[in-house]
Amino acid sequence: MDHLKVFGRAVKLRRQELNLSQEELALISGLHRTYIGGIEQGTRNIGLSNIIKLSKALRLSPSELLSCFNEKSEI
Amino acid sequence: MDHLKVFGRAVKLRRQELNLSQEELALISGLHRTYIGGIEQGTRNIGLSNIIKLSKALRLSPSELLSCFNEKSEI
Repeated sequence: MDHLKVFGRAVKLRRQELNLSQEELALISGLHRTYIGGIEQGTRNIGLSNIIKLSKALRLSPSELLSCFNEKSEI
Repeated sequence: MDHLKVFGRAVKLRRQELNLSQEELALISGLHRTYIGGIEQGTRNIGLSNIIKLSKALRLSPSELLSCFNEKSEI
């Protein structure tokens, strides 16, 4: 699976863990709802500044959010 | 210190730890030398795909590379 899709799946899983809709995550993170939709589908190459906003909204450190790449098979 | 500068400092420190020049890191990562210079100065908002290329070249996982944000004072 490509990196953007791996990241998108991790964002979606965490968002659902927190029982947040995309709209709620957009509101908390200050990002647009359609942008979050694109991230979750793996079609947006998110920048570092937005990774930090998103990780804060998901109550994770940026490092924790990117641990989705730690599974050997993903990289 | 703003996030991009925090990240840039972490990239520079790790590059120097590995005794790599910016040119060598550019060659290994497949990124342009001036782009790496901009990242280290904190003037480029690096995308996820390039974070992954850069972390590989720095022999770190993306999560390890972003651990520079773990120090409470940085975020």
